[in-house]
Amino acid sequence: MRSFLGRDILSLKDFEREEFFRIFEVAEQMEPIARSRRNSNLLAHKTLVTAFYQPSTRTRLAHEAAMHRLGGHVTGFADAKMTRAGDWYQESIKDTVKMLEFYGDVIVMRHFQQGAPHEAAKWASVPVINAGDGWGEHPTQILTDLYTVLREKGRIDGLKWLAVGDMRMRTMHSLAYALTQFDCPVTFVAPPEMSLTEEFKAELRQYSLNFKEAEHVEQVIHEADVILVEPVVQPDYTKARDERKGDVGQTPANYKITRELLERKAKEGAILLHSLPRMDEIPTDVDITRWSRYWQEAFYGVVVRMAILALVLGAME
Amino acid sequence: MRSFLGRDILSLKDFEREEFFRIFEVAEQMEPIARSRRNSNLLAHKTLVTAFYQPSTRTRLAHEAAMHRLGGHVTGFADAKMTRAGDWYQESIKDTVKMLEFYGDVIVMRHFQQGAPHEAAKWASVPVINAGDGWGEHPTQILTDLYTVLREKGRIDGLKWLAVGDMRMRTMHSLAYALTQFDCPVTFVAPPEMSLTEEFKAELRQYSLNFKEAEHVEQVIHEADVILVEPVVQPDYTKARDERKGDVGQTPANYKITRELLERKAKEGAILLHSLPRMDEIPTDVDITRWSRYWQEAFYGVVVRMAILALVLGAME
Amino acid sequence: MRSFLGRDILSLKDFEREEFFRIFEVAEQMEPIARSRRNSNLLAHKTLVTAFYQPSTRTRLAHEAAMHRLGGHVTGFADAKMTRAGDWYQESIKDTVKMLEFYGDVIVMRHFQQGAPHEAAKWASVPVINAGDGWGEHPTQILTDLYTVLREKGRIDGLKWLAVGDMRMRTMHSLAYALTQFDCPVTFVAPPEMSLTEEFKAELRQYSLNFKEAEHVEQVIHEADVILVEPVVQPDYTKARDERKGDVGQTPANYKITRELLERKAKEGAILLHSLPRMDEIPTDVDITRWSRYWQEAFYGVVVRMAILALVLGAME
Repeated sequence: MRSFLGRDILSLKDFEREEFFRIFEVAEQMEPIARSRRNSNLLAHKTLVTAFYQPSTRTRLAHEAAMHRLGGHVTGFADAKMTRAGDWYQESIKDTVKMLEFYGDVIVMRHFQQGAPHEAAKWASVPVINAGDGWGEHPTQILTDLYTVLREKGRIDGLKWLAVGDMRMRTMHSLAYALTQFDCPVTFVAPPEMSLTEEFKAELRQYSLNFKEAEHVEQVIHEADVILVEPVVQPDYTKARDERKGDVGQTPANYKITRELLERKAKEGAILLHSLPRMDEIPTDVDITRWSRYWQEAFYGVVVRMAILALVLGAME
Repeated sequence: MRSFLGRDILSLKDFEREEFFRIFEVAEQMEPIARSRRNSNLLAHKTLVTAFYQPSTRTRLAHEAAMHRLGGHVTGFADAKMTRAGDWYQESIKDTVKMLEFYGDVIVMRHFQQGAPHEAAKWASVPVINAGDGWGEHPTQILTDLYTVLREKGRIDGLKWLAVGDMRMRTMHSLAYALTQFDCPVTFVAPPEMSLTEEFKAELRQYSLNFKEAEHVEQVIHEADVILVEPVVQPDYTKARDERKGDVGQTPANYKITRELLERKAKEGAILLHSLPRMDEIPTDVDITRWSRYWQEAFYGVVVRMAILALVLGAME
Repeated sequence: MRSFLGRDILSLKDFEREEFFRIFEVAEQMEPIARSRRNSNLLAHKTLVTAFYQPSTRTRLAHEAAMHRLGGHVTGFADAKMTRAGDWYQESIKDTVKMLEFYGDVIVMRHFQQGAPHEAAKWASVPVINAGDGWGEHPTQILTDLYTVLREKGRIDGLKWLAVGDMRMRTMHSLAYALTQFDCPVTFVAPPEMSLTEEFKAELRQYSLNFKEAEHVEQVIHEADVILVEPVVQPDYTKARDERKGDVGQTPANYKITRELLERKAKEGAILLHSLPRMDEIPTDVDITRWSRYWQEAFYGVVVRMAILALVLGAME
């Protein structure tokens, strides 16, 4: 297994099975620190740089919270508009990174452009963590989902997944790549215009992923041990913020996980994941059912980021 | 007296007299740390989460500064526009808090909606501090005002207050509730359209608050030991920022504390408070007079927040 | 030499030769901390307040990174729009500073108005560092440039400078003032409408600065040991962000440092500085040449701010 020391976390495509388990092993060691609400000193001498070219609450704050739980320092920007980097003339990723690499010891980057963190990693002398790159990937989110499954179900292998949402989105890409390393059959349910591309399906077959597609969650939810949901209705982000209201109708029944459906069809021990925020694809009356685990994800999200930061910064090796 | 450990600070309505004094007692213990400009380690293992859905300078930075003086960590957001939480579809307070509670150990929330911090507190497993909720309350600001009085006048009981401003505003609500616990008669002066509602006056009478109303500061300023001023002219915040210019005329003489008025009518030992920023209700030539204490409030504001954070996070019990 | 303890860093006009060298001496002591990527505890008990009324990436983050490398705390605002301070009614610098001085132990201020940090320093009981004030000065940037020269060339005296860009800009003012204290002849190259004012030239002559002006970099680049470049094409910042695109044409050849020009005319040992971000005045194929040092500036920028913070906060005396 390659060492995590100094390593970029850009994609789950290049992750090996034992590397997932190494992260989860360290995450379990980190969990008591987060659970006891007592920041440690493991990374007290290190600085995290956040480089968020798009707003984010959960992903940015989960990394910051993780760094604080490890006793470390945080600097950076939460919105490109606050920086010259986000100005119209778009300073190159290279020039920006050749500055940021000296402001801290690890860079967490979200960017609207696919591949931007990879470009950053090419130039940075410090590890770069991809916190979501356009339609690309969102590796730390899916590591969080997998760790949530491990902790809530006690294992990952042998569980059947149902993934509902827009299959063109970065979390779905990272999920599919990740599941190639586990014994986890997966069914994808998405509106036709949001389904897996032929090209991506060919790639997944090459990786021997055991997957199928379905049209309606009702047809397949009974098989699932893990149900991962993302929105299929999204505002038109090319419009101004105020003009977006009313853009979005209801989520069609095909892609909606209601309490009634869960009670009627879902396995008793199945768990329901969502990275949040949600539209109406999971109504709030599901929150208190036995299936929901999406709030727990926020906690595990900190724990997994603690593990990643500790590993790439050498606090655990 | 109820313990402050793990407690939400949402309203001064539910504060008892001895609870005020407990906070002021701890504040006095904290003051040397702030005064010596040497951050301590009292909360070095804790993280403060700021959740500001509306911009704020003083309230947000006073809490952050307090946390730093206690050696702690800070994360969060200073403007909802920087987060998905502030996007048009308005993630529910519940969903947001079910995330934030894992990112730190206490949440300080400002929200444009009255009651939002109360809703947050219902769902959070960590203490929530109300940093201003719409027309609701602003408890930490009034605790700061009271502590300023205690430190500058040596006592709270037996002093007469004059409160000038918009009586519908949150600071006035918190002030009125607070004064019910002290021997402090208070006179309210406000423009008719901004005066105390009948409903609120009935509530204050029920709490046996000794209050009266007047039309002009000139009529009553001679009685006051403490003069607390807020603006009565405000921009129309429903307009865009640039369209607000010129909205606001001069503060009418009835609600203005001029140097001339102070010299002619005010008690020698009276003190003048303002949470700032100000419009023209206190002209700048008052700044160097014997009455002004509004700049000192910034210092006491940090000290009081240190006390609150230390108490709810258990550093003092 | 005056002590740096508690001192404001507002302008290089009032800097003496030995004061420059004192900062560089401390910077050299700080460099191993930054180079080893291991934050120290030198200022663990202090808080830096950032007061940025205009967005900035490099200057703000370099100061924050420096404070973190010294183990310190950071609070403040990165954009006046996030604060009431930036609201239309423009709270006075005095009122703002009379708050900020209690939130930390040193204030770093960028402001669109020339002289704003000086006004702040008049009222603050803590040191104020000018991080750029309108057309005024940018002292910490030029200290960074000079330190970069010292470290990369081993000395400052006896080197010839070429400064290209808009001579009305704050960095050029700080540069000219700084060079009066060294044996460094300097040639200025700027478009006619951006050249040194007669008034400023008279002032520089009074300080015995050895300077001349030229029209084209090609005429003078062969003499230069240090080439400092700033953009001469700038977007019209009075326009909205989106309307600025296309505003800016190509940088004219007179003010452009191409690889071809460097290879044909520049001294082998010359070094090329730019505070970045850049437009097209230094094409990217220069990046890997022997002359470029602009990326190293980011590192030295942290080191110099560490020295300044350590000195004004008394960690080094």
